[in-house]
Amino acid sequence: VAGELFRREIHEQPAALRDLLAAGDEMLEIGRRVAERPRLVRLVAHGSSDNAASFAVYAFGLLAGWTAMRDSISLSVYYGARLAFDDALVVALSQSGRTPDVVEYVERARAGGALTLALTNDVDSPLAATSELTLPLHAPEQAVAATKSYANELAALALLAGSAAGRERMVAEALARTADVVEAALPEVDAAVQPLADALAAVERMVVIGRGVEYATAREVALKLTETCRVAADALTATDLAHGPVAALDSQFPVWTIASEDAVLPAVEAAVERAHQAGALIVASGSAAGEIRAAVHRVVTPSAPLPLLAPIVSVLPGQLFALALARAKGLDPDRPEQLTKVTLAP
Amino acid sequence: VAGELFRREIHEQPAALRDLLAAGDEMLEIGRRVAERPRLVRLVAHGSSDNAASFAVYAFGLLAGWTAMRDSISLSVYYGARLAFDDALVVALSQSGRTPDVVEYVERARAGGALTLALTNDVDSPLAATSELTLPLHAPEQAVAATKSYANELAALALLAGSAAGRERMVAEALARTADVVEAALPEVDAAVQPLADALAAVERMVVIGRGVEYATAREVALKLTETCRVAADALTATDLAHGPVAALDSQFPVWTIASEDAVLPAVEAAVERAHQAGALIVASGSAAGEIRAAVHRVVTPSAPLPLLAPIVSVLPGQLFALALARAKGLDPDRPEQLTKVTLAP
Repeated sequence: VAGELFRREIHEQPAALRDLLAAGDEMLEIGRRVAERPRLVRLVAHGSSDNAASFAVYAFGLLAGWTAMRDSISLSVYYGARLAFDDALVVALSQSGRTPDVVEYVERARAGGALTLALTNDVDSPLAATSELTLPLHAPEQAVAATKSYANELAALALLAGSAAGRERMVAEALARTADVVEAALPEVDAAVQPLADALAAVERMVVIGRGVEYATAREVALKLTETCRVAADALTATDLAHGPVAALDSQFPVWTIASEDAVLPAVEAAVERAHQAGALIVASGSAAGEIRAAVHRVVTPSAPLPLLAPIVSVLPGQLFALALARAKGLDPDRPEQLTKVTLAP
Repeated sequence: VAGELFRREIHEQPAALRDLLAAGDEMLEIGRRVAERPRLVRLVAHGSSDNAASFAVYAFGLLAGWTAMRDSISLSVYYGARLAFDDALVVALSQSGRTPDVVEYVERARAGGALTLALTNDVDSPLAATSELTLPLHAPEQAVAATKSYANELAALALLAGSAAGRERMVAEALARTADVVEAALPEVDAAVQPLADALAAVERMVVIGRGVEYATAREVALKLTETCRVAADALTATDLAHGPVAALDSQFPVWTIASEDAVLPAVEAAVERAHQAGALIVASGSAAGEIRAAVHRVVTPSAPLPLLAPIVSVLPGQLFALALARAKGLDPDRPEQLTKVTLAP
């Protein structure tokens, strides 16, 4: 069946989250080491892992008051800039552990005095070998489009940020309950996205908006749609939509809104209102999808046990919609054109 | 004539650069203050100004070895995260100086001990009033789509980074020569983009790729195309194209490549090769456009006097192409739908 691997791994997310949590001892020592470095968290990754890195900015900021940034790889690796790494925690994310420029960045940062930590599925990978510390993701994947490794990256980053704040127990407990929420939500979300995929089967371009904690979700949903459905999907913060791209919208251009019950919801609502006035077809998903009045289609998800963890739940409609839309378009998400599981170049 | 304001301001860029450089005394005191803060540069902006902020990451990194980051506005403004601002230089960019959440971020950062600097055209704006220091951009604009204010933001950021490194004279001299290069290049670039606009008049979606210093250019060209031509243009780093979006490419999907003579060129070439194999129509612009063998259309620009300043020249083909494409599509770039010069909400 087309997309069977992709489908299976979407549904394995609760089990993968529990596998990560069961390996709690690995976390303890890493958490202690991480908590020693309160200056700057530098995150490096590509693709889905880079989307997870967007989440880390909020996880470290909200739980620990730490500044985390998605760092430029090219600045160090290609241009050879001489940055001060001695006060940095470097978190390198790669499910395969084989992304060459991420490995090279870690080499340079470690030589410069950074504490380096790999988040990867493969503890024997070049990335793990290069990094001082390795946190296994416990989410081995076969589908080209990442799902459970993305969820476990979010969970691992939340645990790290919790450790930085001395609140790793609270985060671990909330994650355990999040796995239950995801498990319970999967069947109803799956049912909800089927008619949506039929309605949008002809769509070739889309904007996905989210802000704050949910910007990671917007990026990840856009990437899933691009990878598996060949849709030109662009992820934007809700505010950036109003600073230009709103001009390109019309009724053939759906705007998918990630709406969670949190502090940025009013800003998201205001941006959606502008997109609606521009004539765009509005789709909303997330725990606050019901608040998006302009939405023609809504996929409401349950709340996460901790607002910070909402993205682990909010990504489900996008993942399952990508699967359903690919099938509606006659595409096989397990055989996306031009892609392989490990991107080795450039 | 449709797009007359937009056209005029594109051509005013050399004069605007010279106006900025003529106000050198303003820079001296600001440069001294900036050089006192060697920890972390936090940049906040939206739209074109945020694209200029992408450039600042490289300007501060390459000239001064400083870490600069595009900061999350929502983390502080909406979520109220308690970050340490006391070691930060905050650079807030807004041509109007009236973007509400940028002003609010600066208020919070200043209260937290940051040195705050506004880059704006309006020295009487709320942003200037809120910031401790103001560097006037000297590029007042009427067209909705920013051009000369973007160029002057790049120049001002390069001057600041030069000050941080004690090399402001060298940067100022290179910028003066860059103004001459831009002036000389405008007529030939304008002529080169006309046939390209006719060839691509039916295009509705596009990817613009660039990396490193030129990632800012890719973002800015994509934004111009979206604002003025209603093209769904997505900016990607050359590497991120290979991590997913390459799957969505086909012959109806042009990939515009920003290619400059610099250290990331091999990575850009490798990404273009993959896009070409995926069937995409390749367009290349920049000083190394001639190196992009897969390109069907090329707009070669002269080299900048300093490689870091290449984006001030490299953006010209995209600006002039956006003008020509809008006209080819029967659109008026001075009246983009749904947009106003000052975005006040959300």
